[in-house]
Amino acid sequence: MEYKIGNEARCAVIGYGSWATAIVGLLTANETRVGWYVRNPEVLEGLLTEGRNPRYLSDMEFDRDRIAPSDDLDGIVREADILILATPSAYLKTFLEPLTVSLKDKFVVSAIKGIVPGDYKTIVEYIHDHYGLSYKQIGIFTGPSHAEEVSRGKLSYLTVVCTDPGNARSLGAKFATDYIHLSYSTDLYGIEYAAILKNIYALSVGIAVGLGYGDNFLAVLIANSAGEMRRFLEESYPAERDTLVSGYLGDLLVTCYSVYSRNRRLGLLIGHGCTVKSALNEMTMVAEGYFAADCIRYINARHKVDMPIADMVYKVLYEGASARKCMKELTTKLI
Amino acid sequence: MEYKIGNEARCAVIGYGSWATAIVGLLTANETRVGWYVRNPEVLEGLLTEGRNPRYLSDMEFDRDRIAPSDDLDGIVREADILILATPSAYLKTFLEPLTVSLKDKFVVSAIKGIVPGDYKTIVEYIHDHYGLSYKQIGIFTGPSHAEEVSRGKLSYLTVVCTDPGNARSLGAKFATDYIHLSYSTDLYGIEYAAILKNIYALSVGIAVGLGYGDNFLAVLIANSAGEMRRFLEESYPAERDTLVSGYLGDLLVTCYSVYSRNRRLGLLIGHGCTVKSALNEMTMVAEGYFAADCIRYINARHKVDMPIADMVYKVLYEGASARKCMKELTTKLI
Repeated sequence: MEYKIGNEARCAVIGYGSWATAIVGLLTANETRVGWYVRNPEVLEGLLTEGRNPRYLSDMEFDRDRIAPSDDLDGIVREADILILATPSAYLKTFLEPLTVSLKDKFVVSAIKGIVPGDYKTIVEYIHDHYGLSYKQIGIFTGPSHAEEVSRGKLSYLTVVCTDPGNARSLGAKFATDYIHLSYSTDLYGIEYAAILKNIYALSVGIAVGLGYGDNFLAVLIANSAGEMRRFLEESYPAERDTLVSGYLGDLLVTCYSVYSRNRRLGLLIGHGCTVKSALNEMTMVAEGYFAADCIRYINARHKVDMPIADMVYKVLYEGASARKCMKELTTKLI
Repeated sequence: MEYKIGNEARCAVIGYGSWATAIVGLLTANETRVGWYVRNPEVLEGLLTEGRNPRYLSDMEFDRDRIAPSDDLDGIVREADILILATPSAYLKTFLEPLTVSLKDKFVVSAIKGIVPGDYKTIVEYIHDHYGLSYKQIGIFTGPSHAEEVSRGKLSYLTVVCTDPGNARSLGAKFATDYIHLSYSTDLYGIEYAAILKNIYALSVGIAVGLGYGDNFLAVLIANSAGEMRRFLEESYPAERDTLVSGYLGDLLVTCYSVYSRNRRLGLLIGHGCTVKSALNEMTMVAEGYFAADCIRYINARHKVDMPIADMVYKVLYEGASARKCMKELTTKLI
């Protein structure tokens, strides 16, 4: 089905974490009313009574006239034309479980960088398959974006992806503020897989740091990750794309070099000698890269792209292989 | 002239800073005797009496039987077949001034990442033009390599570049140790310009940090730098090259993300509001990127490659333009 996003299209955000909160903040600068599905009672209460999310980015104050938070998913979806998904990927299914309203005439935007665990599908693929939406009705909102920086008005570059360039522009207009630079793309496949892969690579960086490798090696590992990402995209879904821009390499860099990255933290614990199980237990929230490593392994069994870094991460996470041994073996494959 | 590096070719290093010292350390693991031109009397004395460089990497202890330090440049050159240049680029001419012996039958390796100030030439171009050496007699030794990490035995990837692959292998054998991973390349032009450009990009990162831009933006700036580097190389000297490996992107990353980078530090001072002159005065050693920005501007007047980041750095350093204004203008050109 063709889908044209109009200026008057109403937006709703699904999720209440820091990225969802930052996105609502962007939207309220342009939209008179933003639907917001918040299933956490404490967060909902804070938003309704004080215009603040007490759990995430609690410094941000919302104009309460412009947000419409609710725990009634069907109600939120009914009132919206554009649904922006911003939950942790692992919980997307749970968040959408109560939904009985059809998504058939909606435009769905994934602001999630990850895969649906267990389904071996990206968010876009899952929405397409599970809800029967055409890829023309699905978009992505991504980029190198620590939510904290976006919420504090630090200049950030975000990429809006739709198969139709006109839709990307219309959607972009809703996120536009003077500290957000918008880039546009039609590469739904490439941008989404890049965002998934970078979490695996950030995990590998964490493992290397935990094992005591230095900055010289990290730079090589990340450069080779950029090459592996490009190779996977080119071989699995050839398209005219330049990966040396914010939506691909930029996002990879911000994640790999961030000491706050959950993926890097998980890798670090494993590199320090924790078992995968105990490292996962130490994390308050599961790192996306953990699921991504399994999913990419599954998907790449079909494409057979040479991916030594993603393979290393998979072996360490899922096959109980020694991080030290696997990393050492990997070092012989990098250039 | 054809030139074949033999196994018995004797090496000498010119320079006594940390990178020169780390390189001598690598060579002594394989060579029975390494010539070492040291014009600083204090360093020479330390090496001769204690086998240590008292000024740089002073923890490293050399086997005094394997090093032959001297302040007699002609003597050093006469005894060597391969000369490895590892001085700061700004002082290369001064270092080589006393030379009266011909280099005609030598193989010269540049381990310098920079240009010869005033001549608008890279080191390789300068050696070629000034000493009349064929490009077949000139090599490069480069990579993401904090000298401190190399000297402490941290795994590092270094790239040996010679127009003849056989020579690259023979040269590489002289640097080989179990913590150095050697890559080989014949892209003399691309690798050298990449190493020059990255200093300009590290300077731009420093300026951005100084002006208060955040991690999201830095990742975009560095991703676009990688794109600009690739574009310059492709358009100015087309060749089969993959820039997403250690010798190009790896080196860019280690420099841009290192808080110890002199180039980043110079940019930081300027971003903080210092004038260029006072920022240069605060530096104990001139940052290579300062000269590189001028040189690349000059060279690119011929090639006319679109280089918004290098242009911004040039304007700030040489035209007295406001860093804040130029960076803001640059942000509209990144993607």
